[in-house]
Amino acid sequence: MGNNGSSQKAGSETREPGAGNASTGDAIDLLITNCVILPVPGTAQLISHGYVAIAGSRIVGVGPMAQCPQGGIRTVVDGQGQLAMPGLVNGHCHAPMTLFRGLADDLDLVTWLHQHIFPAESALVSPEMVYWCSRLAVAEMLLSGTTTVADGYFFEEEVARACVEVGLRCVAGQAVIDFPAPGAPDPTRNIEVAEAFIERWLDRDPLVTPAVFAHAPYTCANTTLQRAKALASRYRVPLFIHAAETRSEQTLIAEPRGRTPIAHLDALGILDRDTVCVHCVWADVQDLELLRISGSAVISCPQSNAKLASGRAPLPLMRDHGIRVGLGTDGAASNNSLDLFREMGFAARLHKVNPGRPAELPAPAVLAMATHQGAEALGLPAETGRLVAGAPADLILVSLQQPHLQPMHGANLLVYSGSGADVRTVIINGRMVVEDRALLTMDLAETCARVRRLARSTVSLANPG
Amino acid sequence: MGNNGSSQKAGSETREPGAGNASTGDAIDLLITNCVILPVPGTAQLISHGYVAIAGSRIVGVGPMAQCPQGGIRTVVDGQGQLAMPGLVNGHCHAPMTLFRGLADDLDLVTWLHQHIFPAESALVSPEMVYWCSRLAVAEMLLSGTTTVADGYFFEEEVARACVEVGLRCVAGQAVIDFPAPGAPDPTRNIEVAEAFIERWLDRDPLVTPAVFAHAPYTCANTTLQRAKALASRYRVPLFIHAAETRSEQTLIAEPRGRTPIAHLDALGILDRDTVCVHCVWADVQDLELLRISGSAVISCPQSNAKLASGRAPLPLMRDHGIRVGLGTDGAASNNSLDLFREMGFAARLHKVNPGRPAELPAPAVLAMATHQGAEALGLPAETGRLVAGAPADLILVSLQQPHLQPMHGANLLVYSGSGADVRTVIINGRMVVEDRALLTMDLAETCARVRRLARSTVSLANPG
Repeated sequence: MGNNGSSQKAGSETREPGAGNASTGDAIDLLITNCVILPVPGTAQLISHGYVAIAGSRIVGVGPMAQCPQGGIRTVVDGQGQLAMPGLVNGHCHAPMTLFRGLADDLDLVTWLHQHIFPAESALVSPEMVYWCSRLAVAEMLLSGTTTVADGYFFEEEVARACVEVGLRCVAGQAVIDFPAPGAPDPTRNIEVAEAFIERWLDRDPLVTPAVFAHAPYTCANTTLQRAKALASRYRVPLFIHAAETRSEQTLIAEPRGRTPIAHLDALGILDRDTVCVHCVWADVQDLELLRISGSAVISCPQSNAKLASGRAPLPLMRDHGIRVGLGTDGAASNNSLDLFREMGFAARLHKVNPGRPAELPAPAVLAMATHQGAEALGLPAETGRLVAGAPADLILVSLQQPHLQPMHGANLLVYSGSGADVRTVIINGRMVVEDRALLTMDLAETCARVRRLARSTVSLANPG
Repeated sequence: MGNNGSSQKAGSETREPGAGNASTGDAIDLLITNCVILPVPGTAQLISHGYVAIAGSRIVGVGPMAQCPQGGIRTVVDGQGQLAMPGLVNGHCHAPMTLFRGLADDLDLVTWLHQHIFPAESALVSPEMVYWCSRLAVAEMLLSGTTTVADGYFFEEEVARACVEVGLRCVAGQAVIDFPAPGAPDPTRNIEVAEAFIERWLDRDPLVTPAVFAHAPYTCANTTLQRAKALASRYRVPLFIHAAETRSEQTLIAEPRGRTPIAHLDALGILDRDTVCVHCVWADVQDLELLRISGSAVISCPQSNAKLASGRAPLPLMRDHGIRVGLGTDGAASNNSLDLFREMGFAARLHKVNPGRPAELPAPAVLAMATHQGAEALGLPAETGRLVAGAPADLILVSLQQPHLQPMHGANLLVYSGSGADVRTVIINGRMVVEDRALLTMDLAETCARVRRLARSTVSLANPG
């Protein structure tokens, strides 16, 4: 995925050799001082009193305060009492589904999707709904420390617009599905719609990587899947697909075809390094081998999978296989939270629950998945999700002053005790979008009011007449 | 448990018949207006625009704004944009263990307890440590909406003192264990120490119900368990005990005795309505029958049980048996959070994770467990955990302004999307202890600094020399 839209775009910002070292005298646009630093989540390295220097959209220096650059600095942020770390990478979301948050809880995926979500979507999804509900999702993600989201929905144009306006980095996938859908009423033209979306967004904004989101093996015919993959390959953008999410999908695909959903995708030629399989709850050992050999990545959404009673993905086994694995929240209709701190805490505890498996998915592994490993799974430019010279300047400051973060014996604290509400400051692509918990780039009250107005329709839908 | 210290104490505040109706003209000390109200969590009742009236330590009226009392009101709090609900009841905690938060993660209970926690405790537990680390725990609990905690530890005197000073209601259990322990170096005198504790706290403060905390069947001899229960019965206070927490405990108790830990407690005469069994992860159907017949209550700590790889308690089955069940966080050393909102979200999702069980432990059931059902499990006075006239004035205001709480389709939102950080105001026994997230009753910075100083010793313990 080295040549996708995002990294091409970054080409214009390529630094001179050595420019990664702040001591060479680069002009520094933003300098964060006096903070604890977790440069590479998942490792033991912790700088107890350090700085992060940013020039343009890149990190140009990270180190202890003793080596902090002096002079030529545009803005200084005092990070005293805070921890700087890479922003979190949400590997899977359907941002506009904030509208359906809590609309239909405590139901299995099939009932939830076919009896509640699909009808609500066919009645209510419009470009306006997608735009405003995505803005709400973006606000929620930013305020809980997410700096990149991989999203997939209808009218994805509006999701991308919301992300760009508010300042969230995104991999935005236009949905492809084989029945009449919002924005693509004629399913025979769904690939055209996706292509038009890619054309519009390729190389247009440094925050946006366009992508294709093929809904699932059970909602897309074989030819659709192959055409979607051919489209993604032609433009060198990622293909996302829900796969092996539920037991019923396993049966639905396996019975007529004699192979699992993952094996089915492999047989169709869909799996390669630019394909991201989402969920994979029911992936068996043969499936994991196929994923490993093809180089495909996996995004796991443990809270959504638990709430919909889909099951628990074999994350530790996936990691043992060397598969690139990231963490996602899924949409707010099934989670119902977009807070990746909460997702980290859930994932780390869930995988330990079996008697005798306390070391399963240890906290450092979860931190890595939610940052640089998630970025690798999405094919983002190298170093995304790390605070190192040359990385995109996507980072967050987490307050260490709250009682639930005392005392600090190490970075595990962020997984087991941290919360999205601890995030004070968010910087994406070198731009400060959240400062001391204030969202600088949007009118939150207006967005909330718009979504509440739209939500009145979901209520009348649930209680007709 | 109707005659324990707390309810005796409340006797002096018994209201006149009819005094629960604010319209009769009671003097109102505190009136909360213009808020959404969830009076009885777990039911569908939601007042969209209402008031809560408090006189002294009691709620005297709850209803829609159209019926809001006028005149004779000391203080009015405008609850616009907030939700009023009963404060949360943390059914099991070891407050001072905040010191060991994150000290030893990703280990099983036996290794964690014997190789890390017991050595740290024997080196570091002192009245001073218990006091300061309890203050930190109290701050964390208050700021995440807990209004009652059931605690058990050594030097429990200091836990009770911290709760009273800061204003948290507690059921405080002095630990009884059959080896030399902090504050009870001679185990033959552990019952005496517990009795002295009860004597000191019985009927002393309306916030404190003293109790006995017998550590576990595997750390207390039969005679100790029986003497602890006799002591609790003599004073009509609750007895708490860890039971059936791990598979190894099951084996340890069952092999020599030929019966499960719960059956063992039953055979010793420990189980009755004033006994609270904590964890019960491994309780089988016969055990649940014993708990049901005896009327004993259960507190479940799902995050702690998951993190220590102890397993998942059969909560839905317990509820089917009609057993009183509450929710607890356990100590910060094993959870590592004392935020009951987080615990609710984890519990509700965890119990659904099995394929085909999406309705298991639905969100309303979890809300009930974390409030009035938890209060019933602890034997607190009737109506605790509900916003109804006559109930103790223990309540919280939760902001509904954050993006992650939009839109609001119902109270499930609190379980699946809510966070302790959404709590703005906390009132306990009629006293405001948190206002707009400021802790009014303690110097938080001083407490954090004290705990950080104490924590330096845990680090040197972990890395001697």
